[in-house]
Amino acid sequence: MEKIRHRYRCEVAFSDTDASGWVHFSKILAYAERAEHDCLASSGITVFEKGKGGWPRVKVSCEYKRPLEFQDRIEVLLTLDHIGGASLCWKFEILKNDGEVAARGEMVTVKVDHAGAVSPISDGERKILEAGDE
Amino acid sequence: MEKIRHRYRCEVAFSDTDASGWVHFSKILAYAERAEHDCLASSGITVFEKGKGGWPRVKVSCEYKRPLEFQDRIEVLLTLDHIGGASLCWKFEILKNDGEVAARGEMVTVKVDHAGAVSPISDGERKILEAGDE
Amino acid sequence: MEKIRHRYRCEVAFSDTDASGWVHFSKILAYAERAEHDCLASSGITVFEKGKGGWPRVKVSCEYKRPLEFQDRIEVLLTLDHIGGASLCWKFEILKNDGEVAARGEMVTVKVDHAGAVSPISDGERKILEAGDE
Amino acid sequence: MEKIRHRYRCEVAFSDTDASGWVHFSKILAYAERAEHDCLASSGITVFEKGKGGWPRVKVSCEYKRPLEFQDRIEVLLTLDHIGGASLCWKFEILKNDGEVAARGEMVTVKVDHAGAVSPISDGERKILEAGDE
Repeated sequence: MEKIRHRYRCEVAFSDTDASGWVHFSKILAYAERAEHDCLASSGITVFEKGKGGWPRVKVSCEYKRPLEFQDRIEVLLTLDHIGGASLCWKFEILKNDGEVAARGEMVTVKVDHAGAVSPISDGERKILEAGDE
Repeated sequence: MEKIRHRYRCEVAFSDTDASGWVHFSKILAYAERAEHDCLASSGITVFEKGKGGWPRVKVSCEYKRPLEFQDRIEVLLTLDHIGGASLCWKFEILKNDGEVAARGEMVTVKVDHAGAVSPISDGERKILEAGDE
Repeated sequence: MEKIRHRYRCEVAFSDTDASGWVHFSKILAYAERAEHDCLASSGITVFEKGKGGWPRVKVSCEYKRPLEFQDRIEVLLTLDHIGGASLCWKFEILKNDGEVAARGEMVTVKVDHAGAVSPISDGERKILEAGDE
Repeated sequence: MEKIRHRYRCEVAFSDTDASGWVHFSKILAYAERAEHDCLASSGITVFEKGKGGWPRVKVSCEYKRPLEFQDRIEVLLTLDHIGGASLCWKFEILKNDGEVAARGEMVTVKVDHAGAVSPISDGERKILEAGDE
């Protein structure tokens, strides 16, 4: 199977930093979520719609290797590692513009319907997800 | 008319600070919102319920007088300045634990229904809001 | 004097929204700050450097005209309205991709040195700021 | 060894929620950090001081079991699981007011000095950390 790989770029905003001078650890995970949303959206999969459900995280983990600072340009490399019946396992790496790994981790998301109940991944979605995007 | 006055206390979290070492200016406004929500809730007025509307801000302003830092204990002094047909005007002051004013400002909120449409303040709500809480 | 006008584009992240389904009001102000930082940086003016000061906000105001939602593409139009001895007054408009105004407001920033003390705008900075960027 | 156990209570703020109607997953981790900071501070250990270092996270993981909503009163149960030469491993559980587990996870923090370099835990700190607080 060709795995989906996706590349998402953004810049560290001042409001992402904390008094240490570095990006707050929780914002690093929000970058990974933005990358995943960008990946799904660019694949034509609905990320979230009011009254139609979405893909909440049920598990995350992250190792922080190097601090990120205000105005750093970063790149999130995302790989879809596993497609379950209703869940997806994503691996991510966050790179600084010098190519160094700032953080790496994993997120498991589940598909939920409008009421927040776990809902199977549809055949259409599976086809897209299995095809990969590169 | 006796105006509602409300006092809300909290502590600066590390995730509220930014790389300047101080609290990010946008978090100061979130403290004021927390104070307003605490005030309404303690008066028995519904703040927000899914499918039932809430009180979004349509106007805010704030002057920043003194920086706040991690672990500062702060107090938000809130005054309900004006009750309109569907809107409320709140004034707030944010005090550091030494009594100094860190910020002061104003927020206008409007009542909206489940669909986000402006909705008149009910007689029951008006009665509570006009009574004040001190 | 030709005023600086700057255009900054970004997309609403899921973490910018709140339970109303719309962008939290405090994040709208963070978009305006990102636009201002982008403007200064692209003009060659240092926005913030550890131990070298920055441009904190001393006053902000904002009127919210239309809600923003997840994945909305927005544009911040920024105008440098006034250059003081140590302060700048910026006006901003935040447009949805259909051209509608979602919010408009003002921010006054002051230049501070490494210790957080107000510091005069240098001749070099003034020259850049007065020249405008269009 | 008696392990440190700490209990931290707070309430879900509106700005912690996202468009799903639930607390954003990244804010759950910020609650765990607040609990850890509260634990260290109440034990007399410096959490963070400008120019004096702190305890950044080098690893976090979290499983999300039940969604949290606006105004939920929560309790973070924190256990210091391991004391290394320069690192601490904390386990946490986040309980809703009905006693149900909303999330559980782990954070590894390291002690860093003013320059962000890893720094050994002092004898004084170790003594406090080994004593536990119950």
